[in-house]
Amino acid sequence: MKKQKIVTIGGGSGSFMVLSGLKKLPVELTAIVSMADDGGSSGVLRDELGVLPPGDVRQCLVALSKSSLTLRKLFNYRYSGGSFKGHTFGNIFLSTLEKVSGSLDQSIEEASRILRISGRVLPVTLKNARLIAVLKNGKKIIGENKIYGNTVDLINVKRFYLTPAVPLNPEIKGVIKQADKIIICPGDLSSSIIPNFLAKGMRQALVKSKAKIIYVCNLMNKQDHTDNFTLVDYVKAIEQYAGRATIGYVIYNKERPNRELLKKYFRRKETLVALGDLKQLPRVKIFYYNLLSHKVYRASKGDALGGLRSLIRHNSKKLAEVIYKI
Amino acid sequence: MKKQKIVTIGGGSGSFMVLSGLKKLPVELTAIVSMADDGGSSGVLRDELGVLPPGDVRQCLVALSKSSLTLRKLFNYRYSGGSFKGHTFGNIFLSTLEKVSGSLDQSIEEASRILRISGRVLPVTLKNARLIAVLKNGKKIIGENKIYGNTVDLINVKRFYLTPAVPLNPEIKGVIKQADKIIICPGDLSSSIIPNFLAKGMRQALVKSKAKIIYVCNLMNKQDHTDNFTLVDYVKAIEQYAGRATIGYVIYNKERPNRELLKKYFRRKETLVALGDLKQLPRVKIFYYNLLSHKVYRASKGDALGGLRSLIRHNSKKLAEVIYKI
Repeated sequence: MKKQKIVTIGGGSGSFMVLSGLKKLPVELTAIVSMADDGGSSGVLRDELGVLPPGDVRQCLVALSKSSLTLRKLFNYRYSGGSFKGHTFGNIFLSTLEKVSGSLDQSIEEASRILRISGRVLPVTLKNARLIAVLKNGKKIIGENKIYGNTVDLINVKRFYLTPAVPLNPEIKGVIKQADKIIICPGDLSSSIIPNFLAKGMRQALVKSKAKIIYVCNLMNKQDHTDNFTLVDYVKAIEQYAGRATIGYVIYNKERPNRELLKKYFRRKETLVALGDLKQLPRVKIFYYNLLSHKVYRASKGDALGGLRSLIRHNSKKLAEVIYKI
Repeated sequence: MKKQKIVTIGGGSGSFMVLSGLKKLPVELTAIVSMADDGGSSGVLRDELGVLPPGDVRQCLVALSKSSLTLRKLFNYRYSGGSFKGHTFGNIFLSTLEKVSGSLDQSIEEASRILRISGRVLPVTLKNARLIAVLKNGKKIIGENKIYGNTVDLINVKRFYLTPAVPLNPEIKGVIKQADKIIICPGDLSSSIIPNFLAKGMRQALVKSKAKIIYVCNLMNKQDHTDNFTLVDYVKAIEQYAGRATIGYVIYNKERPNRELLKKYFRRKETLVALGDLKQLPRVKIFYYNLLSHKVYRASKGDALGGLRSLIRHNSKKLAEVIYKI
């Protein structure tokens, strides 16, 4: 049987989850990764070494790795103190290799060999650019970390763009043309999702594509950032940049998280993503499934999906099966 | 033809040079590496991550690597600024992998696979210990960096020991038993050479060995540390710890470095190692060869052998051929 050619589009954590599930199925995977990150470890490495942000690439590489548990742990290892505090080893690895080899491209190639990855990881662009949000009041917010980290309310954003206007990674055009399915992973709109569609040439590539374009709807909204966003709002926000009527399918979790967890989220005013007015999306086919993970996660330092936000999570296996069947 | 089994004993730079030459010959190589380093990048990693010093191990791994130039460059890449200033990537790699895997042993195993090394690298001990120098006036100097980095005159040292008294890496006993030749590499006595003989069990292993034990005599003395040391002094200093009458052969460079270079060294009161009173070493066979490298070295940040001290160097190819023939 011919392997399905599946392309994922996203940032770090969402892509990690989607790829981890899909890699166990008979598919050919390519992960397209946002390059907007300029906070935390990636931000420091960008500034100090003058490299592209490595964090999201690292998570996708680890997701696709067939190497020993030790090596996968190594790449996600986060230093808790000393000179390297806050960095992950994998970020340092990718950035230093980019310095030595001269390009993130080659750095990913070497890392892919070492981590024995099945599939490919492609940064959406190989050029350095900053994300800009133009607010409805005309004000500009510069940098992903200022927008997401300092919690700009997306309801106030008129539009996003990258500066300079960087071209799409040249490998991506062909990959999208060949794809059977394109998965827009869950993740923060401003940092993980939308920047992928801002590289010059991405929108055209998607419009021409004959692939099924599937959005895996976010589970939760973030306080003061995407308050009360619905499935409809997410789809519309994405299509503003990916192109009108791009998304053909949405996978929506209909399972209710347990009360204790929900309470924790509610205390931070973080709410479940509701459906919204579905009549506004007449062309979109929506799949409703129970897709929650029931594992008990401890937010650990080295965990790619650490922190409170990840406690209500997709079950990557169930999700992968749904994607595979569509 | 049976491959010669050659074991090297030393620190970073000297072993790097000897191994780089030998690896091109039909030999089976094992590098035994000093674990006394507690200054510079290795010192910071010891303190911050609680690991064993990685620097000398890294240099031996790179010397034995058959991997791409990019990966070898990566491992020796030294950061010139920012949070990682002064560290080499390979040191960070080995130390983090030691944290993740739980032992330097396993860390070296993974690194050996990634770097595709021919041969083995064995830390002389797998336990953490500090080097102590007891001076003739009874004073104790604690730590390799205090002894070498702050230039203790070896003429004033009564004896060295490790605290705690750590055991030999259990792999080494067998390796020494099987060896055809054991090479004591050139390098600083206090930091690179003597600490190897201080691990409990090393001296006995050497005494029992039937291998030819060959010392590659240092080229230059270090100011205020080994002023006017002769070949005879080096051999005696080593045998104080390695065991009496251990060294059967010495390889001595008889070629004169060019005047310009010598002047540079003389300005820092660094002198060529003279022969000394050879009658004191009646059992030792000395080989005199022209062994200098005529390459022009630029001391670069990423160079394993950077800095002024390396400008007068052995030619690793010529030296390897001499070792092979003995």
